[in-house]
This record gives sequence, structure tokens and C-alpha cells, in this order.
Amino acid sequence: MKANKNFYKIEQNYLFAEVAERTAKYSHEHPEAEIIKMGIGDVTLPLCEAVTDAMHKAVSEMGVRETFKGYGEYRGYDFLCESICGYYKGFGVDLETEEVFVSEGAKTDLGNILDLFDSDNTVLVTDPVYPVYVDTNILAGRKIVYADATEGNDFLPMPDYAVDADIIYLCSPNNPTGAAYTRAQLKEWVDYALAKKAVILLDSAYEAFITDPDVPHTAYEVEDAKKCVIEICSLSKTAGFTGTRCGYTIVPKELHFDENLNKLWLRRQSTKFNGVSYIVQCGANAVFTPKGQKGVRENIAYYQENAKIMMTALDECGIKYFGGKNSPYIWLRCPGGLGSWEFFDKLLEEANVVGTPGEGFGKNGKGYIRLTSFSTHENTEEAMRRLKKMLGK
Amino acid sequence: MKANKNFYKIEQNYLFAEVAERTAKYSHEHPEAEIIKMGIGDVTLPLCEAVTDAMHKAVSEMGVRETFKGYGEYRGYDFLCESICGYYKGFGVDLETEEVFVSEGAKTDLGNILDLFDSDNTVLVTDPVYPVYVDTNILAGRKIVYADATEGNDFLPMPDYAVDADIIYLCSPNNPTGAAYTRAQLKEWVDYALAKKAVILLDSAYEAFITDPDVPHTAYEVEDAKKCVIEICSLSKTAGFTGTRCGYTIVPKELHFDENLNKLWLRRQSTKFNGVSYIVQCGANAVFTPKGQKGVRENIAYYQENAKIMMTALDECGIKYFGGKNSPYIWLRCPGGLGSWEFFDKLLEEANVVGTPGEGFGKNGKGYIRLTSFSTHENTEEAMRRLKKMLGK
Repeated sequence: MKANKNFYKIEQNYLFAEVAERTAKYSHEHPEAEIIKMGIGDVTLPLCEAVTDAMHKAVSEMGVRETFKGYGEYRGYDFLCESICGYYKGFGVDLETEEVFVSEGAKTDLGNILDLFDSDNTVLVTDPVYPVYVDTNILAGRKIVYADATEGNDFLPMPDYAVDADIIYLCSPNNPTGAAYTRAQLKEWVDYALAKKAVILLDSAYEAFITDPDVPHTAYEVEDAKKCVIEICSLSKTAGFTGTRCGYTIVPKELHFDENLNKLWLRRQSTKFNGVSYIVQCGANAVFTPKGQKGVRENIAYYQENAKIMMTALDECGIKYFGGKNSPYIWLRCPGGLGSWEFFDKLLEEANVVGTPGEGFGKNGKGYIRLTSFSTHENTEEAMRRLKKMLGK
Repeated sequence: MKANKNFYKIEQNYLFAEVAERTAKYSHEHPEAEIIKMGIGDVTLPLCEAVTDAMHKAVSEMGVRETFKGYGEYRGYDFLCESICGYYKGFGVDLETEEVFVSEGAKTDLGNILDLFDSDNTVLVTDPVYPVYVDTNILAGRKIVYADATEGNDFLPMPDYAVDADIIYLCSPNNPTGAAYTRAQLKEWVDYALAKKAVILLDSAYEAFITDPDVPHTAYEVEDAKKCVIEICSLSKTAGFTGTRCGYTIVPKELHFDENLNKLWLRRQSTKFNGVSYIVQCGANAVFTPKGQKGVRENIAYYQENAKIMMTALDECGIKYFGGKNSPYIWLRCPGGLGSWEFFDKLLEEANVVGTPGEGFGKNGKGYIRLTSFSTHENTEEAMRRLKKMLGK
């Protein structure tokens, strides 16, 4: 048996696994330290009542023969696909239920979607970027080209027609930088993709954090996007589903190259997937009810308040940062010219605060660190107090 | 963008999707027909009380900040991995928790595990076989060789040292034939795999249906199996989780070739997976409690009673069949020398009973049909009455 040698080509540890390991080691050696985690983008507020009510009902149904559910649709239950279509309708976008595929999370589909493509495709990713785009393509043996996201372009690289690409990953609002493309900017990417006959895989896991009216909540607000964009969304950040697991992927029927990708994706899913738990789909469906929307908006507002607390403190410290406005992430330049992992260690050891080293997201992340707004108000304020103290402010 | 051309090489429809389509079409044209579905292996009894109690508790925890759970371990929660180790202990097998990986079902992992292997490997599958093994490998561009399972070898092909293979799929108890390898037979496969430096991927989704004391519940009951077997299990049939979604995959640390596959699999899972829903893992964990085991054993006994009803009726019809003893499936030779799809259509149209055409599982399945014992007693009896009437018995 020959193993997949591409495993040698990726980092030995997944970034967040490495962050967790270093944190656990420090915590073990300093059991008295009250560590505040602002590293991995994990939410802290509980599921809202509409969601838990729906899941309780679903669990009860599963315990009674008459209402028990076995295998569901590979694509997801119609009731949920219809609710997702309704959500898009709110942004002025019409989707058919057959264009919606319920997933167990954006991360999984961002990797799995690659099954649709030949290994002989060039993949364009922005740098810094969520490591999953890079790792999954390296494992599949694809060539990767990078578009630099730097302070010079506000971390929003635009297409370069001199560069050829077949598969383009965009993340907007961006993880890790928090930068978000406007409709006009996204249109430029759509035009580029159509010119290059490329597919855009748009990770829109953070759309619920958008506040800027020029930033679209879905790519399909942009003309012609249905011809080239697969949109991959998640309820993890929208509705606190990091531990509940549900997302959705939109593969428009208009997206035709030599193949009908909507049809291929259904074939892929029916071959390698058996759908998301009925109970979880019922919880996800409740997110899109008026009561659910009220609940999740309240939670998002809570995190946005944290972002404001952080931005105020960073301003007071004179630290340059990005994001926080359309995103739960704040991307800051490490003070004192420190490297990402250097500042990570200093922050952990001197302030007992965990961030994510920007370097873990790519070479342009060197010298930056990502902090999340997913903590409690209390911990966010305490973390900022410690940061200021550490920096002597 | 170049699509994955291997999609051309697999059947256009996944077998069970095709069965569902033909059934839906007939049902639409004959709305009065009371169709009894014995096709797809989907359970009908509700989740047992221990499981729903545990899931209600978990849902409630997710609704309260103090007990809310975000991202879990990529490998699965320790509490569940430990329970699974305890279950194996009952078969005299010692596993470490780090050898257990919780999945959202066997089907998913049977496909995903292939990420560990180079595409330049020869895959050995028995024929007839669960189509997922073949389809996923064709999509990945691997060469497949077949081992014929026929009445001549009781549908249990044994290794042929003249054939080289790198990856070997075994399914025991078998889907679709119901045939199950004894410890002695499985040992021959382990010896062959070690001689060929091959990995065995053992699908043991039906182990809970084993009644024969010579048939092992896990490959690791067999000497040296930890050196070459990855075991992929499911709670779908064991505990009625077809719509709840949970399974587990065992990758022993002893399984070393040029690579430590346990380590690679953890790296793969942390890159392309974010774990199974906490709620579902709590439900799965309850399966392994004394109350849970009592509940699931009662349900399995109910299905085993159905298998007996079917075997009695088939005997009365003089139809040759296999399985039913260590398996929820009955694999029968189509009466009157009919082909699989011919008999499928006849059974659907004349008896309003849905089976799964054996041909869909491979060339050696031609002329056979698979029936499941997952119906109710009432429907199983009614289906057998209709079958006998159709055949004039």
C-alpha cells in the first residue's frame, strides 16, 4: 500500500491543533493561570431557545415509531432547503431548493467540494487565508498560486488577469483579516472567473456579521455570480452551531462549464454522504424562523459589542488593526515588531490570553495575530485590561 | 476549470437513488398502492429511550451558557471513545481511546479514508458489494480488481495469492449477501494482507446482527489484525441511527506501513472535519450503557424475527436464499430465472414490494434481489403473503 505522500507537504499539525497544544501545555505548567481564549473562532453563547425547542421536539419525534425518521434526503430535508431559499430571498436572491445542499459544516464542504475537480487545476488562494483551502488542495496534489493580501490593498487582493486560475477561493468577510469585499469588488472577481472559465468557491461563513451596506451577504447579489460561484455557508458563527454542526452549500444550476456541477455534487453527496442528522436539521430550520432570527441577531450583537470593546482598547494602545466591523475577527499588527508566534507566546505567558498567530494563515500573516470577539463581555474586557497592562498603557 | 472526469465512469445514479426514483414513479402513477419498502436498508423502529433521554439532556445543555459546547475534539469526545473501547473490551479486544474516531456514519468514512492513500494503489473488492467502495475508488482514479462471491463459495471469496492488492474492502456480515466470515476465514485474509503489505478496510456495520459464535464481532478478535485492518462501524443498524448519523472508525496504532495511518487519519480529520454534533455523540454514548444495550438488543431481536418470517415464507415458495442469520439482509435468487431489475419491477408492480436489485451490487448479483428485515412484523408478513400470492403458492 502506498500512502498519500502529499501528507508530507502540509504542516504536521493543523494550525488550531497547534494553538490548542501550546495552550494546554502552558495551562498544565501553570494551573493557576486564568486563560482567556481568543484564538480558535469558537462561540460561547448558548443556542437560542427557538433552536433548542425545535431540537427537543425532533428528539421526541425520533423516539416514537409514527414520527421516527430514518435516512433523509442526501441534499437535506426540503423544509430546511426551503427556509434557506427564504433567507436568500431576503437579500433579493432567488434560489431553487435543488440548488441548496445541507452540510455538516462549511469546513467539510470546503474540502469535499474538491472531489468535483480534476487534480490538474490551478487553485488561487489569497494569503493570509483559512488553512483548510491550502491543506485540502495540497493533499489532492493541486498547484496553488497565491494572491497577496496586505495592508497595501486593505487585505483585499483584486484579480490579476496575468495570473491563470481554475478554482478560486475567496472568503468574505475574511478569515483571518476581517476584510470584506463590496459588491463592486466581488463583481470584478466574477468577471475574472468568467473570463478564465474558473469556479469561485466563496466561503461566506461570517456573512451574519456584515454591517456595511456595500458588502453583499451573498455573492448572488452580484450579476452573473450564479454562473461561476459556489457559495459555502455555515451556521457555526451565525447561530452558534460550532458544536451542533450544520451549514449549507449553494451550487447554482446555471453553473455550467463542460459539466453540470449541481448534478455532479448531488452524485458526490449521494455516494459519500448520508445527510445531516434530522435533529440538527430541525434546529437549523428554527434559525430561519422569526423567533430564531431574533435570537441569533441578539447573540451576534453581543459579539459585535465585544469587537467594539477590543477596538477601543487597541486604539488606546496605538495598535494598528483591521476587521471587527463586518467580522467577528480582529487582525492586529503585533506591537514592537514581534513575530506572530513570538507575540502569541508573550500574550499567553504575560497576559494569559490566547490569540491565533497570523503566520499560521500564510506568509503575509507574519507579524500579525488574530483575536476573536466570541468571548464574554467580562473576559473581553479583562483580556484588554491585561493587554494594556502588558504594554504599559 | 477541469471537472473530475471519473464521474463519467460511475453509474449515473447511485443505486439506492435509482431504486427510490423507480418506486416514487410507480407510487405517483398508482397512488392507491400500499407499497412496502424492503429495499434500502433503513430501520423503522424508533430510537430507544436511553438514547432520546441522553439527547434531550444534551439539547438542554446546549441552551445554557454554563454547559454549552462549541467545537469538540476532532476525534470525538473522550467519553464516547471510552465507551466504544468498553464495547470492544466485551469482545476481548483492548483499544486505546486514541485509536477510536467518531464519525457521522460508516458510509462517509468508507469514502473519506481513501484520502490516506495514493491513487496508485490497486483496490480489491468482492463482487457483489456495497457500491460505495467501488464508486469512491473510481472517482479517485484507482484500479479495482474483483473477487467473485458466488453460490459456489457461499458468497465468501477467500484470498488468491496470485492477485496483488494494496487496499482490500471486506464487508462482514456482508451487504448485500448476508454472508459472514468466521474467525478462521478472516485470519486467512489478515495473513494475505500482511503478505501483500495491504490494508484491509473492514465494514462491520452489521456486527450487531451476528448470532453465529464462530463469526467475530470485530476483526481484532483475530490475531495480527491490528497490523493491517481499519474497522469502520456504524450505529445505523445497531441502534437505529440511520437518520441520527453516527459511527466510528478504528485505526490501530500498530497499523504501520511506511506511514503511521493513525496519525495521518487524525491529520486528515482535523483538516476536513470538525467532529460530530455533541447532541448526537451523547445519544451514541447512551447506546453503550446497560439501558441502551437492552433497548437496542430488543430492536435487533424484532428485526431478527422479521428475518425468520421471511425465511419461512421463502422456504414455502421454494426460493433459494442466503443471509438472514447474521445479517438483516436476505439475498435471494430471483424465481423463474428472472433478472434483478425484471424481478424488482415485477415485485413492485404485482406485489407492491420494493427490494434492491442484486445487479446493482455487481455482476455476480445478476439474478438476485436483496430484501431487508427492517420493516414492521405486520408489513413483513403482508409482503410475504403478497409474494406467495404472486408466485401462486
